[in-house]
Amino acid sequence: MLKVGLLGAGRIGRVHAINIAAHARSQLVAVSDVNEDAVQSLASAHGAKASTSEAILSDASIDAVLIATSTDTHSDLIERATAAGKRVLCEKPVDLSLERAQRCLSAASKTGIPVMIGFNRRFDPNFAAIKASLKAGEVGKPELLSITSFDPAPPPVSYVKVSGGLFRDMMIHDFDMANFLMGAAPQKVHAAGTSIVDPEIGKAGDVDTAVVTLTYADGRIAVIKNSRRAVYGYDQRVELLGSEGLLSAGNVLENTVSKSTSKGVVSAKPELFFLERYMRAYAAEWDAFVASVLDGAEVPVTLEDGVAALVLAEAATESARSGKSVLLEV
Amino acid sequence: MLKVGLLGAGRIGRVHAINIAAHARSQLVAVSDVNEDAVQSLASAHGAKASTSEAILSDASIDAVLIATSTDTHSDLIERATAAGKRVLCEKPVDLSLERAQRCLSAASKTGIPVMIGFNRRFDPNFAAIKASLKAGEVGKPELLSITSFDPAPPPVSYVKVSGGLFRDMMIHDFDMANFLMGAAPQKVHAAGTSIVDPEIGKAGDVDTAVVTLTYADGRIAVIKNSRRAVYGYDQRVELLGSEGLLSAGNVLENTVSKSTSKGVVSAKPELFFLERYMRAYAAEWDAFVASVLDGAEVPVTLEDGVAALVLAEAATESARSGKSVLLEV
Amino acid sequence: MLKVGLLGAGRIGRVHAINIAAHARSQLVAVSDVNEDAVQSLASAHGAKASTSEAILSDASIDAVLIATSTDTHSDLIERATAAGKRVLCEKPVDLSLERAQRCLSAASKTGIPVMIGFNRRFDPNFAAIKASLKAGEVGKPELLSITSFDPAPPPVSYVKVSGGLFRDMMIHDFDMANFLMGAAPQKVHAAGTSIVDPEIGKAGDVDTAVVTLTYADGRIAVIKNSRRAVYGYDQRVELLGSEGLLSAGNVLENTVSKSTSKGVVSAKPELFFLERYMRAYAAEWDAFVASVLDGAEVPVTLEDGVAALVLAEAATESARSGKSVLLEV
Amino acid sequence: MLKVGLLGAGRIGRVHAINIAAHARSQLVAVSDVNEDAVQSLASAHGAKASTSEAILSDASIDAVLIATSTDTHSDLIERATAAGKRVLCEKPVDLSLERAQRCLSAASKTGIPVMIGFNRRFDPNFAAIKASLKAGEVGKPELLSITSFDPAPPPVSYVKVSGGLFRDMMIHDFDMANFLMGAAPQKVHAAGTSIVDPEIGKAGDVDTAVVTLTYADGRIAVIKNSRRAVYGYDQRVELLGSEGLLSAGNVLENTVSKSTSKGVVSAKPELFFLERYMRAYAAEWDAFVASVLDGAEVPVTLEDGVAALVLAEAATESARSGKSVLLEV
Repeated sequence: MLKVGLLGAGRIGRVHAINIAAHARSQLVAVSDVNEDAVQSLASAHGAKASTSEAILSDASIDAVLIATSTDTHSDLIERATAAGKRVLCEKPVDLSLERAQRCLSAASKTGIPVMIGFNRRFDPNFAAIKASLKAGEVGKPELLSITSFDPAPPPVSYVKVSGGLFRDMMIHDFDMANFLMGAAPQKVHAAGTSIVDPEIGKAGDVDTAVVTLTYADGRIAVIKNSRRAVYGYDQRVELLGSEGLLSAGNVLENTVSKSTSKGVVSAKPELFFLERYMRAYAAEWDAFVASVLDGAEVPVTLEDGVAALVLAEAATESARSGKSVLLEV
Repeated sequence: MLKVGLLGAGRIGRVHAINIAAHARSQLVAVSDVNEDAVQSLASAHGAKASTSEAILSDASIDAVLIATSTDTHSDLIERATAAGKRVLCEKPVDLSLERAQRCLSAASKTGIPVMIGFNRRFDPNFAAIKASLKAGEVGKPELLSITSFDPAPPPVSYVKVSGGLFRDMMIHDFDMANFLMGAAPQKVHAAGTSIVDPEIGKAGDVDTAVVTLTYADGRIAVIKNSRRAVYGYDQRVELLGSEGLLSAGNVLENTVSKSTSKGVVSAKPELFFLERYMRAYAAEWDAFVASVLDGAEVPVTLEDGVAALVLAEAATESARSGKSVLLEV
Repeated sequence: MLKVGLLGAGRIGRVHAINIAAHARSQLVAVSDVNEDAVQSLASAHGAKASTSEAILSDASIDAVLIATSTDTHSDLIERATAAGKRVLCEKPVDLSLERAQRCLSAASKTGIPVMIGFNRRFDPNFAAIKASLKAGEVGKPELLSITSFDPAPPPVSYVKVSGGLFRDMMIHDFDMANFLMGAAPQKVHAAGTSIVDPEIGKAGDVDTAVVTLTYADGRIAVIKNSRRAVYGYDQRVELLGSEGLLSAGNVLENTVSKSTSKGVVSAKPELFFLERYMRAYAAEWDAFVASVLDGAEVPVTLEDGVAALVLAEAATESARSGKSVLLEV
Repeated sequence: MLKVGLLGAGRIGRVHAINIAAHARSQLVAVSDVNEDAVQSLASAHGAKASTSEAILSDASIDAVLIATSTDTHSDLIERATAAGKRVLCEKPVDLSLERAQRCLSAASKTGIPVMIGFNRRFDPNFAAIKASLKAGEVGKPELLSITSFDPAPPPVSYVKVSGGLFRDMMIHDFDMANFLMGAAPQKVHAAGTSIVDPEIGKAGDVDTAVVTLTYADGRIAVIKNSRRAVYGYDQRVELLGSEGLLSAGNVLENTVSKSTSKGVVSAKPELFFLERYMRAYAAEWDAFVASVLDGAEVPVTLEDGVAALVLAEAATESARSGKSVLLEV
């Protein structure tokens, strides 16, 4: 039984709490958060202790921590947790600063304690099936990857200002998905971005719609499309053209009902947002973390993976700014 | 080059005229109809002769006739055409009277001239693919067949009164489809019918909605659903459950566009009616007729098939009336 | 907080245990089963007491019981539980004997304690959406209902012999679905059944493939298709044709991935069986039960509903045997 | 009745011949080709005269010519035909040389005779429905366009060498589609190309897989993906994200049949290639041309449109070569 401390009792912390508590081999022991009310209510709902991050990190009976605090605390908490010998699952992104994330990686590596980063989409049954099919060679050699990732609605401009920008905050998931499916880092990054959804986002120095092209040393190409607004729901799709076929993962819909009338055939929208769409992914992610700790299974998403996604986000941000492609060392 | 006389220049006659004229190995030579205007305009559009059925049947240069006149003339024209040595493609149904159709079959058989009946749906690429898959054993042994066949809107009650009733006029297609896919006649017919769409149809002695269950000597079952009204278009589907899988043929849609908005995902309706849906089927049907005449290929839908479908229509009419199943000699 | 005793720790009991434990307003207090090992492991997994049905029914601190024991004990346990003042959620079917179920209903009614029957499919988000759309009048007046319900594989013949037969054991769900969606009992039942999947099932006096036609006093028709074998998974679909459109609920697939190769486009199969397909339905069912007890919400599936489905199962069994339709008093 | 001369009796010429002959308001009068056999057989099949381009262009009884000869003759024939006062429908592309096409435009403009360019995809019912929906404002303001266009198999390298390259030969269709749907020319073109399908194509100086990003003055973005190889068929899709929704046009499949077995659910592939996929588009294109001549309807695809697509092809070719974006004057 894995004894777990949860750092962070916000929206995503509550999702993790349910999965930790429901898992047959893990137990939620303690919860911390800067918000006292949040921590009390979440702890009591799962029979855990309301605590502090300090107390959790120094509690020898706790095996692992899940870091679901605000992004600016991730690097610091990863360093402290690994120094304390705790296994770590940390929410994405590692950090908004690539340099800080790299220092964190360096520090954590020295402890020898593996850190897992919460790129939940790798555990989505649909994207995981794409990866499995690829690995099995079912469509031959991959050649052209397309990732579509649209949020239902843009965040407030106040959030945009502190978010690190679309490439670090939103497309970071897609950069990791590209790394995951392509199994290599690209050589070159080209980004086109615009603030056509909300000009205020542009005034805040960010984009809300972007297309990024990644080219790889062996000639493969990937293209990522992001928009902050898809009024019909959370649009999350992946397509991969290979030498022997195409793999395509569609959206998860709210239900399977269609209604045919004189006006057309109406079916359900995609699940509205990430909690609904990735509910199964979060549970599978937690299961993989438990297996990596208790069974010695390979850590499926490493801190290095977290840094690698940030490298692409940094390059895309630069490319969108300069209008020129950015070359990466590979 | 097959020289063809077309008897009947109404809606369906015009469809056949185009296919006869467009086919590389057939030529539309003459057209007849009781309506003088119709025959003139159709003949001139295709460079054919406006003629009469008498003249066509006695013209030695004409190899084949396509009978697209009103149903009550079919048996008579089949008998006269085969007696004149013409190959025949006759629109369905052979006759509204089973007894008359049987006499026609008897007379035509004596001439030794094969007659093809225009059950166009056998030539629909979707249903034909189901048949081919079945024959190839791709879903094992067939066990349970379902046919859904809904018209977009009920005909006028005046038509209903002379139509022979839903089972002879509309479900006749589905009886033939069952015979085609099951490759045998059923042992027993049970029909449930209602005039829920339009009570006036009920007053005229007919039904507008019906479910027929066919049971076969070897234990297979087929179920046919008909409605005179599907406001979203012409709904034409087939499903066949076999020991190793399910074959399913869906509707042909007006286009492949979907529109996702905050209200749902809207896609196109099925093609509105039989001319649109079965356009490709009519062309393939004509091609098969030409091949049967010019190449000696097997006649794909025989006059016997036309009578066999009528036998089921008669039994279903009786079952819906009496509320009891009707046993057939097989 | 609703304190709940679970009677039955088998496959379905374990599903309910998870939902009871996970629900914010219910607590699993005690579990009983004839199998000692099953009861011990299930109880400990959820921090509940291993107990006996006697002890649970006489424990005043327990508010409600969930009956998930073998069918032959249902009527007895419902009577004892309601006599003891416990609210009840009982798995389907109420009983294999219609007469026994009616006596149970009579006894339970006298206690004034409402009993809910576990027709889980009413809580499936897809079928529930059909019901909601119907209620909202989105397709006008219902006219023709079709229910397709195929199991992935037939049960052992030993099970078939004690199951009460396909109509009571399997189609009972579909009878309830028809009652649920049509909002009335039919006037007439016609059943065609065969043992084409496994002749041994026929020798045991049962069928494995059946088509049932229900006709209603107002002219509506429903048709239910069952097969014990669909090698591609659990096939659970509903279609309802109304005066203004068609509602259609499709299968829930294992994932949304398609693979296009030179051989065709392959997509995922339906979820294999009822635990996967109806996972969300079982959770929603439990939530509705909790609301009916704690909030006084209407009991969504009553003991009367359980008896009504049995009436249809009885009639269909009789019709399949006699080959004649069975009239019901409505 | 429009009297038409067809210049070119190759594969695409034969498609046009059928549409000209089948159209109620046009007549195929004469056909020319460098291949004597081709011209004889095509002419006789449609009752037209085997002729030469010279004779056709100087025949005063001919109203219009359809140019379906090899690309290097297009500009010259357009100039001669318009000088002779003939209305023209010319296959795409206008020319491989942008400079030559611009001279052709200049010469043709002076004659005042409108020229239509055969960008057939604008007439595909699916893409046309996207355009109509956009125009009707059904998804609000367009923001992000995606075009997927994959051929089933790469052409021979010998063809590649004289083709003008992927951007002029293949993506030219997609550039026109972008111009058609966006209603404006982009400001900037970025192309990434690779010869991952066939290295011999790379050695011949061309690419076989490419992603082009177009950015517009008002902040809109379009992305076009091309591959010379999709083993599952001709993959032709368009998606447009707008402020109020998403429009998506999928592939046209060979049939609507699906087969569910223990291995998955298999459905039909996209129509194999452009003749099958765009059969309806070619007929609609011809109908639009006839209407533009006989009814004075607006020419739906002008010579200017043909040149505008070439401008993008030129820019993309340059961008793929240099690795830098190309700015356009708009």
